[in-house]
Amino acid sequence: MFVELKHGSGGRPTQQLIGEILSIYGDNSIKDLEDCALIEGGLGVTIDGFTVSPRFFPGGDIGKLAVCGSTNDLAVRGVKPMYLAMSILIEEGLPKEELIKVVKSAYGVSKELDVKLVAGDTKVLPRGQADGMYITCCALGKAVTGRPWGINNLSSGDILVITGPIGKHGALISALHYGLDVDQLASDCAPLWPLMQPLTEVAGVKCARDCTRGGLGTVLCEWAEGAGIGIEIEEDLIPLDPEVASVADVLGFDVLHLACEGTAVIAVAPDCAEYVLSSLRVLAPNCTAIGKVTEDHPGIVGLKTEIGGIRVVDMLAGEMVPRIC
Amino acid sequence: MFVELKHGSGGRPTQQLIGEILSIYGDNSIKDLEDCALIEGGLGVTIDGFTVSPRFFPGGDIGKLAVCGSTNDLAVRGVKPMYLAMSILIEEGLPKEELIKVVKSAYGVSKELDVKLVAGDTKVLPRGQADGMYITCCALGKAVTGRPWGINNLSSGDILVITGPIGKHGALISALHYGLDVDQLASDCAPLWPLMQPLTEVAGVKCARDCTRGGLGTVLCEWAEGAGIGIEIEEDLIPLDPEVASVADVLGFDVLHLACEGTAVIAVAPDCAEYVLSSLRVLAPNCTAIGKVTEDHPGIVGLKTEIGGIRVVDMLAGEMVPRIC
Repeated sequence: MFVELKHGSGGRPTQQLIGEILSIYGDNSIKDLEDCALIEGGLGVTIDGFTVSPRFFPGGDIGKLAVCGSTNDLAVRGVKPMYLAMSILIEEGLPKEELIKVVKSAYGVSKELDVKLVAGDTKVLPRGQADGMYITCCALGKAVTGRPWGINNLSSGDILVITGPIGKHGALISALHYGLDVDQLASDCAPLWPLMQPLTEVAGVKCARDCTRGGLGTVLCEWAEGAGIGIEIEEDLIPLDPEVASVADVLGFDVLHLACEGTAVIAVAPDCAEYVLSSLRVLAPNCTAIGKVTEDHPGIVGLKTEIGGIRVVDMLAGEMVPRIC
Repeated sequence: MFVELKHGSGGRPTQQLIGEILSIYGDNSIKDLEDCALIEGGLGVTIDGFTVSPRFFPGGDIGKLAVCGSTNDLAVRGVKPMYLAMSILIEEGLPKEELIKVVKSAYGVSKELDVKLVAGDTKVLPRGQADGMYITCCALGKAVTGRPWGINNLSSGDILVITGPIGKHGALISALHYGLDVDQLASDCAPLWPLMQPLTEVAGVKCARDCTRGGLGTVLCEWAEGAGIGIEIEEDLIPLDPEVASVADVLGFDVLHLACEGTAVIAVAPDCAEYVLSSLRVLAPNCTAIGKVTEDHPGIVGLKTEIGGIRVVDMLAGEMVPRIC
């Protein structure tokens, strides 16, 4: 048995591999199905490795992505990002100005979020033992919600809200990887804390997740399976850029599996859905409700298609494009 | 200008590169000259990337090294290791049993230290874009000393204690890299917290550091330059395995620049040096005093050689062997 690219897709094979690793750690690990763990003192911790190729892309670069991607895992738990630890692996021969440019991008987001860099490490690998540079970011912050947002809060009737059009990052990187022409497309790479922060005072917010590797579809499957609830979403309610739809069509990808890097799905109690949407609209004009949590078909995500049928949504099973993030 | 292997050596070029990165972050970073930062709530944070080649070596593997290396940065600050976040980059095609073996090693040290895995991430890179696997560990813990151990506490008269023979990890990896025959040599890779923990109650302990990349020599130069103090050590007091000395001779390396991965240098007030040594001896029978902090020649490390002369010790300036840790 060998590790394959599909184990890095963020979908089911990734989940299985991580399951095996966690089973070794057993009780010496926190297994709460979230991307950000809460430890004593209300501190949130998350870690993410970034290997995106190309390093520079419309809408961002690996430095911006590293800070957005790691702090977004905090933001969707209701945790205010405060500190960053960053480890950079560099391939020998990387132009130093590229490194500087990437660090400046990382700094830009850190500054915007008022996040302090508290620890760092650099290693240099001989030529051919890395491709340019890889960044790992550990982000730390303080939980500021009354109860932590998480899968365990999900219950029947919750409304599912998406903060913007899905799949832009995944579609862009896939298009670049396969040499498609996508002039109008940019990654949605952005920090989510400015969007989520006002929601931390809304008691009806239950659970949120940034739809990165594996996309919205994989996140919703994790929620349905993790909480033992059913989920129903409607295809024609999901915001989608035409260019993202084209890329998915050409490459044969399901848009529900295309990664976002600044777009979250949020589950809220029905009585505060309108309030949440109006709060989000200030910064995310395209946010919208896309479905709900149901008592029916626990563990299953159903998509009501535009022609009126119901399709079962599964996690991403194979590999789409390597090095999406 | 390109990033070169020497920028990853842990010596002066590494320091310069990190200085450039930190200057971008400016006030948005903690710059206290230590490998572990202390943030609010007495929390210690450190991050380290591990790329060691070969992945399995006498005395350890990349998994054991990752947990030892990261938690040791906490231990030498008087911070009890408690939590671990681990990010693994895997090259497509790595045998899964190797990954499992490495995670089991990491778990072994974590269990010994009662450290919990709280966050993780895996990414898979296409063949040829990594060499096997790289691990980044962020370790978190609680400061338990009255005042934090650190460079700022150093003062004239302090006694320098080393916990064991130096350079074993660096000599071993160098020997393996160059195909030298070293049957008797094993890495010193080990967790330092069991050694350091009893010292957290000793008021006279000032500052400690694990002598990793760049070796004892580089650490002492950082102390001398960082605190503006002089340091004098005596060559014939420094514990050294004959095989480490041979490897250094054959390859033309200075043993003071060879990395340790479970050996620390500790500065203690003169009146408690004997107490510290007797405490350390329980677990580290070869610990010994090797020199002292002086008022003379601030910023300079002097080595009294076996034949009675004084040699100025500098940081590692170039690259010895890539992927030492």
